[in-house]
Amino acid sequence: MTDIHTSVGHSVDRLDAADKVTGEAQYVDDLYRPGMLHGAILGSTHAHAKIRGYKLDAALAIAGVAAIVTADDFSTARTGAFCKDELPLAKGKTIYLGEPIAAIAASDAEIAGRAARAIEIDYEPLPAVLTIDEALAVDAPLVHEDLVNYTKIAPSFSERNVLWQCRLEEGKIDSAWAQCDVVVEDVFETAAQHHMYMEPCGALAEVDRSGRLTIWSSCQSVHLVQQRTAEWLSIPMGRIRALAPKIGGGFGAKGGLHVQHLAAALALKTGRPVKMVLSRVEDFEIVRSRHPARVVMKTGAKSDGTLLAREASIFLDGGAYADESPTVLSFAVLMARGPYRIPHLRSRGLVVYTNKLKAGAFRGFGNPQVTFAGESQIDRIAEKLGIHPVELRLRNAVAAGDQWAGGQTLQACGLRECLTKLRDAVEAAPELPFAPQHRRGVGYSAFAHISGLLSTGCNIYLRSDGSVAVNTGVVDIGQGSDTVLTQICADALMLTPERVSFASPDSDSSPWNWKTAASRVTYMAGRVVLAATIEVRDKILRQAGEIMECSADDLEIRPGGLVGLKGVAAKTVTFAQIASHAIARLGGPIMGASSLLFDGERLDPKRALIEGFAFGNLGAYTFGAQAVEAEVDEVTGAVRVLRVWSAHDVGRAINPRMVEGQIQGGFVQGMGYALTEEMQWDESGRLTNPTLMDYKVPTALDAPLEIHPLIIEDPEPSGPFGAKGVGESGLIGAAASIANAIANATGKRVHQLPMTPERVLDALIGED
Amino acid sequence: MTDIHTSVGHSVDRLDAADKVTGEAQYVDDLYRPGMLHGAILGSTHAHAKIRGYKLDAALAIAGVAAIVTADDFSTARTGAFCKDELPLAKGKTIYLGEPIAAIAASDAEIAGRAARAIEIDYEPLPAVLTIDEALAVDAPLVHEDLVNYTKIAPSFSERNVLWQCRLEEGKIDSAWAQCDVVVEDVFETAAQHHMYMEPCGALAEVDRSGRLTIWSSCQSVHLVQQRTAEWLSIPMGRIRALAPKIGGGFGAKGGLHVQHLAAALALKTGRPVKMVLSRVEDFEIVRSRHPARVVMKTGAKSDGTLLAREASIFLDGGAYADESPTVLSFAVLMARGPYRIPHLRSRGLVVYTNKLKAGAFRGFGNPQVTFAGESQIDRIAEKLGIHPVELRLRNAVAAGDQWAGGQTLQACGLRECLTKLRDAVEAAPELPFAPQHRRGVGYSAFAHISGLLSTGCNIYLRSDGSVAVNTGVVDIGQGSDTVLTQICADALMLTPERVSFASPDSDSSPWNWKTAASRVTYMAGRVVLAATIEVRDKILRQAGEIMECSADDLEIRPGGLVGLKGVAAKTVTFAQIASHAIARLGGPIMGASSLLFDGERLDPKRALIEGFAFGNLGAYTFGAQAVEAEVDEVTGAVRVLRVWSAHDVGRAINPRMVEGQIQGGFVQGMGYALTEEMQWDESGRLTNPTLMDYKVPTALDAPLEIHPLIIEDPEPSGPFGAKGVGESGLIGAAASIANAIANATGKRVHQLPMTPERVLDALIGED
Repeated sequence: MTDIHTSVGHSVDRLDAADKVTGEAQYVDDLYRPGMLHGAILGSTHAHAKIRGYKLDAALAIAGVAAIVTADDFSTARTGAFCKDELPLAKGKTIYLGEPIAAIAASDAEIAGRAARAIEIDYEPLPAVLTIDEALAVDAPLVHEDLVNYTKIAPSFSERNVLWQCRLEEGKIDSAWAQCDVVVEDVFETAAQHHMYMEPCGALAEVDRSGRLTIWSSCQSVHLVQQRTAEWLSIPMGRIRALAPKIGGGFGAKGGLHVQHLAAALALKTGRPVKMVLSRVEDFEIVRSRHPARVVMKTGAKSDGTLLAREASIFLDGGAYADESPTVLSFAVLMARGPYRIPHLRSRGLVVYTNKLKAGAFRGFGNPQVTFAGESQIDRIAEKLGIHPVELRLRNAVAAGDQWAGGQTLQACGLRECLTKLRDAVEAAPELPFAPQHRRGVGYSAFAHISGLLSTGCNIYLRSDGSVAVNTGVVDIGQGSDTVLTQICADALMLTPERVSFASPDSDSSPWNWKTAASRVTYMAGRVVLAATIEVRDKILRQAGEIMECSADDLEIRPGGLVGLKGVAAKTVTFAQIASHAIARLGGPIMGASSLLFDGERLDPKRALIEGFAFGNLGAYTFGAQAVEAEVDEVTGAVRVLRVWSAHDVGRAINPRMVEGQIQGGFVQGMGYALTEEMQWDESGRLTNPTLMDYKVPTALDAPLEIHPLIIEDPEPSGPFGAKGVGESGLIGAAASIANAIANATGKRVHQLPMTPERVLDALIGED
Repeated sequence: MTDIHTSVGHSVDRLDAADKVTGEAQYVDDLYRPGMLHGAILGSTHAHAKIRGYKLDAALAIAGVAAIVTADDFSTARTGAFCKDELPLAKGKTIYLGEPIAAIAASDAEIAGRAARAIEIDYEPLPAVLTIDEALAVDAPLVHEDLVNYTKIAPSFSERNVLWQCRLEEGKIDSAWAQCDVVVEDVFETAAQHHMYMEPCGALAEVDRSGRLTIWSSCQSVHLVQQRTAEWLSIPMGRIRALAPKIGGGFGAKGGLHVQHLAAALALKTGRPVKMVLSRVEDFEIVRSRHPARVVMKTGAKSDGTLLAREASIFLDGGAYADESPTVLSFAVLMARGPYRIPHLRSRGLVVYTNKLKAGAFRGFGNPQVTFAGESQIDRIAEKLGIHPVELRLRNAVAAGDQWAGGQTLQACGLRECLTKLRDAVEAAPELPFAPQHRRGVGYSAFAHISGLLSTGCNIYLRSDGSVAVNTGVVDIGQGSDTVLTQICADALMLTPERVSFASPDSDSSPWNWKTAASRVTYMAGRVVLAATIEVRDKILRQAGEIMECSADDLEIRPGGLVGLKGVAAKTVTFAQIASHAIARLGGPIMGASSLLFDGERLDPKRALIEGFAFGNLGAYTFGAQAVEAEVDEVTGAVRVLRVWSAHDVGRAINPRMVEGQIQGGFVQGMGYALTEEMQWDESGRLTNPTLMDYKVPTALDAPLEIHPLIIEDPEPSGPFGAKGVGESGLIGAAASIANAIANATGKRVHQLPMTPERVLDALIGED
């Protein structure tokens, strides 16, 4: 890559590739601090029970045990991303099985675990609610007796255990059905999926003698770790320095706290560093999952395929705490229309508390559930009308200038190109050899997502050798964003990427950044990196003008760290000379700073209003279409995905290989969601499959034979170099594509995820 | 300190106080990295010798030795702060005894040291030059045969071994002498002083699998460590991340490299972390010293005390490499006039190479040498004219509006107030009991220094809880600058200092900062911190205006993180609300960035021109006056400083206790310079006293009974809150004050530092 100066659009190697492939990259569990203690957690053994008391004496008496913290060590303030319903450790009662009640620091992890088991808890069991229906029952036990419901919009719903409701309505839905020639109506069910990052959650906290904490953790945002730990510990944010070592995946689960506050509390109590890394079982039991959902959906179209009306009722199981449920629900409501011009829409939802692990953000953020429903219905309509599924989607696809549900105008939209390129690719593919006793089909889906949300800042400075330092606070959680943001800066200065360094996130020095989520890093952080780089570029030109004694307007940036006089090839000055000119006098280094707040490029203030929740302008909408060729074993019901074509409008691919990686990885995770992954709780509320033996994540052997990413570049005007995000899109349509492929192969439709062999067999032998 | 919101002017506790007093603060030698090797250095055993070859086999054969680097492992490019004359390790020949020739990494430091001793070097000894006179002799051996002299201004000087010359002339010096009623002429000699920081120099370098280096080191600037290591390793600066743990003092010696490049080269060669910490002996032998000097000075005055003319010829012994000698010399030439209106001036100097340890920056930077000379002569004139030494100084003292030598106009000057307050304090002091066989006297000095130079940047952002993060890249070398800069930011926002965090310096994320030197941090970094804070403050007010739906002009910052409507006490919004308003939407965090380059406050471009060197506007001049009461033992010649009054115009004391600490610490270090400290080389060029047993640094028992700091605040218009630096001033006048006290006590004057008992006795029995 050494001679690339237009690095945008090139598949530059990841900055961390060498460290990762050699195993040198350091994750939280690789870190060591002198005098470090190891932490363990005591989890609740009841899904719902009063805690009448605990006896810590036996645990504290174990040699090597340094400290135990319980809820009594924290303030009683509840916190949470949206609803303040969560305590750092269970207090008074426990509301899911596994819920942390105490945390222990000891000289090694084995002793800490032994101490956890030596703590006696006096429980008084309470009846639990474990499903949406149980939660909504008129006489249901309450998960949170002390919390009033936040909104009361749909009086037809029971208000028992409802944590959030919202609703979006456009057109005249009730009268629209009469104009439809075809109407389909279904109930879809989806399961709890675990994020299943390679690296379990963990944190290491250290305290200095002034009481200031340093926390290294596996996280998606050092700033949110700092903010929420500060809330729970009731100390100012500035008293915590949050750092991120290498992160082994997050997918949404590591955006909130997991054990950072517990390690921090133990460090404060002992005065020593405390490391706490969850076992895989604990990680399954206490972090968060994707929301199990029921989507009741009705869609109507005219005989020519024009979609007219859709009504969706979305029920989410939020688990024990609200976490990000309000926004997941609201986003599901917002996305339920699908990427189509459907003039009449009613989309509403509610999310309930249950006595289970909380559900939260997860790649797709409510969209996979509604897209599974919506895209299944599009195929049903196509089948009923005898229109090719791609053709039906093309006839209704949104385009630039259209309004999304809620009112945001689409600035760019490559959906039609995704669909046509997808169709061309599928048609051009050679036929695979036939497998006996298998039925084969192709299923399609189309989908949209967003890329954006909330704020990010960037600081850049020019070094004396003409190289550039970028500091954004963005955490690269394994997806390669450090490299992409480096490319954006390098390209804007016509430098090779080696000439740009990227600072490790540090809440002390990195400007505030929300988090690595919402497919936002390339789009949002990329914008501020570009804006700050342009500020540096302008200053470089001005300084060069001083040196060359001419106007900056007569100068241009040239490849390799040069400024040249326009039209005069030989007349140049190097960035190093310019930087030294700026530094080596009573002046200052050349710096650039950007947040989107004040750079004059204020975004469209139009807001997507949902009753019960208000989003701002979400950012840029992204689009994609997917085709899946799958084979159904007639005897076992097993489904095997053979080939996938996945077309994604990314605006501009900054690093095409990484875009392809996101598309491929997203599909495989979506395929697990579609076919095999399901967290299962027994009637006592115990998670029965919290191991990789029992919880079935697709392995390399399960992956499709071929995944063909198709990159569509319809530049987003607000994006850096036209780019928008692709972190989530690969997953969103997977379940629908596979369900549609099964239907195409067998004529039967599965309405419930995961589409296990049993459920497929049930469909094969059932009524259509 | 919790309720201080106007923290400027208050003696806020140091941020690192608790960690330091408990021993928890981590210095380089406290750091550990997994798989870490330990380094050792092989130093030359000759002051000047050809290196015909070396045999490494025996050393490499020792079990545990991982790698050896020699000059062959580096590029042949020479580098240096001003003259590119220095190699990372001696190559071809060695030019001082102790000069590093090879560096070894091994499993422990003992083995590394053993390997160093097992390396055989084939030397061909050459004649060495060890003093200024030897270096300038017509037939002197050349230290650097291959370097031409940089300037040739004074043809009367021999050009043998001259590394730099410069000259400054004002008025008509040659005709001025005839107008003088009294003229004094002396030759003064000063010795090499070691910086004697508590923490010897050291570095820890680690390399990742992409070859990127991280270097922790005891340094005065992470950015210069990065820059110079990159030069010597011939890699881009961005391939090095330089960090600073806690630093145990620097005093100028840690501004350049010591072993960072050696640890880095060994890390690159082995792929493993390498820590290298100098022993005290090595630190003495190879880091740097204050320049030994000879100052030939002639000063003339009229009978009423009006100073008319001064001529100074300054000879510095620069040692083996140029390092910062050109600027030390130029600054000495610039400061030789002293803080007086002397219309006729000729100041010139040269610095020579010798076969000894290089000399470089050291608290005072050439000024202590010329101030010892100049202030001794002022007292001689006062004595000859029968004018009180303070009165003579007051009659000639510069004032605001005057031009300094070279042309810079003084914006503020508290010198006269220093002198009058000093005189008052001395007169008011009670007399101490008499000691038999001792003579007692009081000596005075007055002096100026600068505070400023070169560039610094600052980034600030507002956190969601309304606290503030400051990032400057400034290294706190033990003097407390982190605390002072925190106070400046806190005060400008009316926050308590706890609400401001201060980022640890990191070349990846901290904006470029020159170094902690030149009494510049409070003044230069303080300015950019204040400017960036004001940018944040303005944005806070604008955002508050949006929230409160009024103009920002109607709003004001109030203590405790509040914005209020002017004139309406109850109408407020918190910083936390404002920060959240800015963050929790598609916008950005509130950020401020400043370097002095583009903030519209461009400094006076007038330059102090010295023939042979050009300084820019240096920053702010600082002023001080000192009185020392000392006792001379008639029998032994031993001098004991009893009481000190030291008045310093600091513009504004941001943290008075730390200003007092600088004044006191500076004096004690200056007293060591004056009385006991002298690095001594034997005729072979071997340093004979490289230990704390033999090199006499004042201990707490040697310190004066009383040191009374007098803080004078004459606000500097360009300084933050009016402040300017005081890091060096405490030392500058010490030798002169003590010499004048000895003269006052005994009637005899000592012209050579240190003023050891032997030299004092020589003076007592010698001719006046």
